[in-house]
Amino acid sequence: MAAAVGHAGKRTAIGTGNGVWPSIRVEPETLPAPGDAVEDLETPVLVVDLDRMEANIRFVQAYCERLGVRNRIHIKTHKIPQIAARQVAAGAAGITVQKLGEAEVFAASGLGFEDIFLPYNLLGAAKLRRLCAFLERYPGIELSLTCDSAVVAEGLSTVTRKTGRNLKVWVECDAGLGRAGVTQPRQALDLAGIIEQLPGLTFGGLMSFTADAEPSVAFMTAALAVFRGAGRPAPEVTMGGTRQLRWVEQVPGVTEHRPGTYVFHDRQTVLQGGWSFDDCAGTVRTTVVSRPTAERGILDAGSKAITPETMGLDGLLGHIVEYPEARLYRLSEEHGYADFSAYLESERPQVGDVLAVVPNHICTTVNMYDWIVGARNGHVEVVWPVAARGRVR
Amino acid sequence: MAAAVGHAGKRTAIGTGNGVWPSIRVEPETLPAPGDAVEDLETPVLVVDLDRMEANIRFVQAYCERLGVRNRIHIKTHKIPQIAARQVAAGAAGITVQKLGEAEVFAASGLGFEDIFLPYNLLGAAKLRRLCAFLERYPGIELSLTCDSAVVAEGLSTVTRKTGRNLKVWVECDAGLGRAGVTQPRQALDLAGIIEQLPGLTFGGLMSFTADAEPSVAFMTAALAVFRGAGRPAPEVTMGGTRQLRWVEQVPGVTEHRPGTYVFHDRQTVLQGGWSFDDCAGTVRTTVVSRPTAERGILDAGSKAITPETMGLDGLLGHIVEYPEARLYRLSEEHGYADFSAYLESERPQVGDVLAVVPNHICTTVNMYDWIVGARNGHVEVVWPVAARGRVR
Repeated sequence: MAAAVGHAGKRTAIGTGNGVWPSIRVEPETLPAPGDAVEDLETPVLVVDLDRMEANIRFVQAYCERLGVRNRIHIKTHKIPQIAARQVAAGAAGITVQKLGEAEVFAASGLGFEDIFLPYNLLGAAKLRRLCAFLERYPGIELSLTCDSAVVAEGLSTVTRKTGRNLKVWVECDAGLGRAGVTQPRQALDLAGIIEQLPGLTFGGLMSFTADAEPSVAFMTAALAVFRGAGRPAPEVTMGGTRQLRWVEQVPGVTEHRPGTYVFHDRQTVLQGGWSFDDCAGTVRTTVVSRPTAERGILDAGSKAITPETMGLDGLLGHIVEYPEARLYRLSEEHGYADFSAYLESERPQVGDVLAVVPNHICTTVNMYDWIVGARNGHVEVVWPVAARGRVR
Repeated sequence: MAAAVGHAGKRTAIGTGNGVWPSIRVEPETLPAPGDAVEDLETPVLVVDLDRMEANIRFVQAYCERLGVRNRIHIKTHKIPQIAARQVAAGAAGITVQKLGEAEVFAASGLGFEDIFLPYNLLGAAKLRRLCAFLERYPGIELSLTCDSAVVAEGLSTVTRKTGRNLKVWVECDAGLGRAGVTQPRQALDLAGIIEQLPGLTFGGLMSFTADAEPSVAFMTAALAVFRGAGRPAPEVTMGGTRQLRWVEQVPGVTEHRPGTYVFHDRQTVLQGGWSFDDCAGTVRTTVVSRPTAERGILDAGSKAITPETMGLDGLLGHIVEYPEARLYRLSEEHGYADFSAYLESERPQVGDVLAVVPNHICTTVNMYDWIVGARNGHVEVVWPVAARGRVR
């Protein structure tokens, strides 16, 4: 047990005396050290099996190459520049971020991310000021964006005027998810035209994210016809998601895919995406701190250590690796509630046992940790700061 | 816009060269400055109305004093030492923390927290080593703990032997919640006896947290009878929760209460606890980034900015202050989905409008932010680091 995280102390130091950041001391955390046995780590702790992670990176890279689509990995799953660097080294064609703050962290990392896609409507004076600052600070980074309305496109055009940098802007399409995006192919064509007429902007193509194949196929088929009917070349098409890799080749015109979760996997990609729990690289190690009844075990990982999202699955909150038939049926802030009645009493865990939980959604789980551990063969190899954690802006 | 948070940069600096903390640069975030107009803040941002917060602190303090129970505030709601200091200054009798890491942050703050209650089963070699270090480092702090099994009590006794410091240990009772805690009053008596026989430990009393009055009244009535029947004095009784303040006076023998959420309130304490949305001090300000259909608005705050917990309410994810009849019906990681069909089309928000959302659960919402804003009369007064954010251990 060696190094210390001093981040909160630094925040204090920087804030002291400027009237904004009140002066308090914050004790640094003690971190695991390389070589520490994973089984001895204090819990709860999020541990990534590096062999599995590397296999996941190789598998999806090869899969995308077979399909002939660019693999533009989404960093929202891990928010860790060092992991993204491994994905790019394996062949990924640039990175996807979801917030400008994530772009800032990855750009500043010094790890060479020169092609960043930010598929999110950026608007508002404060946000556009930050976008200007980013573009001026990183002339060597190609940042591309999306919009789903003329209002957003017009704001981005003002940014190009202020910075002297052109921007490639894609049109976000709602091809069946019911979130953001134009809902009709004709609107996509119209918005592409608006983008092209606005100073400083070029049209990148069509961006979408959906849960299911059918509406994506229908939307993109119609969109390509609309563009063709207008005498325009077929636009590029970028789709997203790990589960969606199973069917993305059915969508006409796809040139790029943006998978995120695949690097770690989670209970959702297993139950809904056809992966296996043996593919799951990220688990929360948690101690059984109470066995108040014969059936119930209480874990020291609650909704601040494991996402409380049920993800449209079966209502359970995670998969307990050592007890796959146990039911993790509730989380309060610092307690996980598990039912071990599927096991003989003699087989159920004891107070003090440490278990590994695969969360329903690894992306929101990682986002709760300041740092996570990378391990191999049961020993710590690296401790990564979750550098873009909490960058909600 | 003035100060910068350098925490991640500091993490890097500390880690550089030790082989654990990989060397990357992380750009600091720009913070709001005092006097900034709240309406101009970049979104999403969590803003606390200080007038409301102060009124909430005064109200519950006076309420506990009328009941004659000590108000041992729970810091898990805000994790901010400066706010806890205001609560203690208003009359709170010490603080409650839920994890040892929170105790470390509050002890190190220098804000004078000398009486800390940690109602959680601490066990395992790594955890107990940290507990020893805490006790040795802070001889002036009275740290009291709980247990619900002899295994935990025995571990705590070894800590007293190593540190030479006695520990007051309470017995956690499951008075109806179905979480941790002994489930029978007789077990509480037996465990109190075990605690008293173990070297270095003294019995503090009975600790519980439940959702409802009836089982608490039943359990504590029976427990007091069991202790009386054994010829022992009535134990102290500590209960918890903000909603629970409504009925805690019905529970026999209560000497202390541990409310947390009341400092900010949230949609749960309004819908289930009888408070009002006008009491809610903490809101997430969020921009409408898309209006893809006549009814739907997409907000730039998703499950990484607003807790995805439904909290046993109506399935919605928050209350939109400006549109109380709107339905915030879904959150993905960086998007909130709102249905404005309860309003005339002409009254619905436009792309670019900023709305304030009261989350279902403010405690897990605050836990996602590195810093939050305190404001009065629409202007920033303070920016607080969420100093114990992410201290899951």
